[in-house]
Amino acid sequence: MVQARPRVIIIGAGFGGLSAAKALADAAVDITLIDQRNHHLFQPLLYQVATASLSPADIAAPIRSVVWDQKNLTVVLGKVSGVDTEAKTVSGDNGVRSGALPYDYLIIATGARHAYFGNDHWETFAPGLKTIEDATAIRHRLLMAFEQAEMAIDAAETERLLSIVIIGGGPTGVELAGSIAELARAALARDFRRIDPRKAKVILVEAGARLLATFPEDLSAAALKSLQRLGVEVRLNARVSDCNAQGVKIGDDFVGAGTILWAAGVQASPAASWLKVEADRAGRVKVAADYSIPGHPDVFVVGDTAALTDARGVVVPGVGPAAKQAGKYAARVIMARLHGEVAPAAFVYRNYGNLATIGRRAAVVDFNWIKLRGPLAWWLWGGAHIFFLIDFRNRVAVAINWLWSFLTYKRGARLITGPTITQPREADTERKGMSQE
Amino acid sequence: MVQARPRVIIIGAGFGGLSAAKALADAAVDITLIDQRNHHLFQPLLYQVATASLSPADIAAPIRSVVWDQKNLTVVLGKVSGVDTEAKTVSGDNGVRSGALPYDYLIIATGARHAYFGNDHWETFAPGLKTIEDATAIRHRLLMAFEQAEMAIDAAETERLLSIVIIGGGPTGVELAGSIAELARAALARDFRRIDPRKAKVILVEAGARLLATFPEDLSAAALKSLQRLGVEVRLNARVSDCNAQGVKIGDDFVGAGTILWAAGVQASPAASWLKVEADRAGRVKVAADYSIPGHPDVFVVGDTAALTDARGVVVPGVGPAAKQAGKYAARVIMARLHGEVAPAAFVYRNYGNLATIGRRAAVVDFNWIKLRGPLAWWLWGGAHIFFLIDFRNRVAVAINWLWSFLTYKRGARLITGPTITQPREADTERKGMSQE
Repeated sequence: MVQARPRVIIIGAGFGGLSAAKALADAAVDITLIDQRNHHLFQPLLYQVATASLSPADIAAPIRSVVWDQKNLTVVLGKVSGVDTEAKTVSGDNGVRSGALPYDYLIIATGARHAYFGNDHWETFAPGLKTIEDATAIRHRLLMAFEQAEMAIDAAETERLLSIVIIGGGPTGVELAGSIAELARAALARDFRRIDPRKAKVILVEAGARLLATFPEDLSAAALKSLQRLGVEVRLNARVSDCNAQGVKIGDDFVGAGTILWAAGVQASPAASWLKVEADRAGRVKVAADYSIPGHPDVFVVGDTAALTDARGVVVPGVGPAAKQAGKYAARVIMARLHGEVAPAAFVYRNYGNLATIGRRAAVVDFNWIKLRGPLAWWLWGGAHIFFLIDFRNRVAVAINWLWSFLTYKRGARLITGPTITQPREADTERKGMSQE
Repeated sequence: MVQARPRVIIIGAGFGGLSAAKALADAAVDITLIDQRNHHLFQPLLYQVATASLSPADIAAPIRSVVWDQKNLTVVLGKVSGVDTEAKTVSGDNGVRSGALPYDYLIIATGARHAYFGNDHWETFAPGLKTIEDATAIRHRLLMAFEQAEMAIDAAETERLLSIVIIGGGPTGVELAGSIAELARAALARDFRRIDPRKAKVILVEAGARLLATFPEDLSAAALKSLQRLGVEVRLNARVSDCNAQGVKIGDDFVGAGTILWAAGVQASPAASWLKVEADRAGRVKVAADYSIPGHPDVFVVGDTAALTDARGVVVPGVGPAAKQAGKYAARVIMARLHGEVAPAAFVYRNYGNLATIGRRAAVVDFNWIKLRGPLAWWLWGGAHIFFLIDFRNRVAVAINWLWSFLTYKRGARLITGPTITQPREADTERKGMSQE
């Protein structure tokens, strides 16, 4: 009787997928939004979960509750394992049930994982930060290192346990380093009897010549200064050549470390191999100017999974705002086709600014038209992040937690959960992929 | 030169151990507070973590940060495995280092775990609620059951997945049942497309003739009414004879269930076997009138690990306030001995009241001199719990979370973390003891 409505499948409920879904809210389509997790994650604040400032639920919202009132959308919890661009179906397990789901339009927004550039065995020693589980595993490791240092009898071992090496001087590395330095120097400072957490050594290693390579140079310099003021040792032009259970080899220098964190690179999700299309070295799908893939105008890849140089010649960066813009753009392309309208103008990435925070009171902000640093930048950074958080409750909870730690120097989420056994490395390895909040 | 100060070891930083430690704050002793976790847990609100209202960090505080300013105290993260009452030492692994820690006075406050009365294999199917890990595992199971129901093709299977059986009609069982009923009927109600969460069946099974057996009879009746108003099916005089992956056998009646929760009994920690002393059927150490153990006046057992009938003939119950009172009392006995003073008067348990909440707006409160039920009781219950929460930040965070869910009917911590695979039962079993927040 009724003409079936076009089916749109969106894979991934991150910034890209969610913004595509919302942009299609009024379209006469049936949307299926597939994610392997039940929550949308506000990744920019993930490092605050890893460093015990925020709880996971503060920065994550159930996907179903974000889109519950979007009547043309069904949320499916499931893991996609493949796409058949000829049959136009998506296959997978769990929620992607009974073989394959058919689509008329497909938007892939599956993001990226951290990458070890051919040294995948380093992951055991130097975990990265992309999911809630990553964050609580890092929190466990970090807090356990202080507990073990408190128990250690050997002075050299104590020093090693109190050394934290962060690899990669982009925003995540800079933010982790600042937050960990403050954790050691303020939140933990008075809580131990045998060790002095303030003596913890935080080392930030960057292969390039400056921190925050995508920021203007003077902000890189400001970030460096702020970190050094917090006591972070920043090593520029320094390349990690090995990682093991005892520490990190930086060039020819071996640095013992109780905690090693990886913030040095990402690898796109396997969309390119699903689609059998060309990818760049980071695994990102080379998309056409309208975010569709060559030869398949009904398949779009957006966000960290896509590689695109926009109409003005700007390489679209792998950040949240770019993913949001791309998701929305792909939705507009689909709507134009459905309505037989002219395709929207070629995609242009709008860079509203770059922000990074260094500890509790400093930040660097580049709004293009104005550059800021110091406390004012910090407040702007905080306000902007709270503003973009997904719902009211999270905003209030995060504001309260920040205010509390600002006033008391404490950390609200300093929990070590799961077994507190003697060898945290093995424990962490086993726990990979296991459930944490 | 100086006379060594008496060494007090306290095992367990729950309500009993922590109150003993605080009562000894000004004593001329060296206290070692040992716990296998880094956090003190506010257990009365644990069911709200299990039902996605609160985050773990809202009801847990790092032990070190609770006692950081108590100069005569050292916190040790470690697991005790034995006590030698002749040599007067405590042995264990991890923080309880280099063999054995010597003590002059020992206070054991290690609490209890849920017990299955000889049916330990039921634990896989019907997990209990005592730790943060228990709570997040239950949250995972509960939320995944709705996700799986949404995916299920078979109507009978959908109905089974949407059935939740809670075994045990004490405060934990009653509070779980009320909270789960509201989760299904309000928070989840509009979030699914194929199922109607409001049709979820919540069944509370109690072996005795009434709920809340330790409360006055009219409050038991009020609790029953409140639960029924929320749509909970309460089965009294009903005994569970078997549990498996498909459901629960209640008497001769098999009830299919996607989630089974155990709130029917506890077993004390193994202190009795460490001490080689007599225990009651629940494993609790039969202590003397001053909470010391027979033949060892320097060893005290308090809280859920101890069995005592007080000087007025009242059986001291296994609740937080009783543990606090006992911990403080044991500390006073120790201080009297140190100062050569007369021992304090025999222990008398002060019952300030019993509270239980049923969903968001009803509660029953028994203050001995006054009994309350309904919304006023709920607000009293909430206020009392927030007041007793361990620190300012937790109080504010919990108040915000409650206000938010009160106004919006949503749940702030509705996260499914870890793998969302098809068979949650197996996954949960593997995850036992693994790390969650």
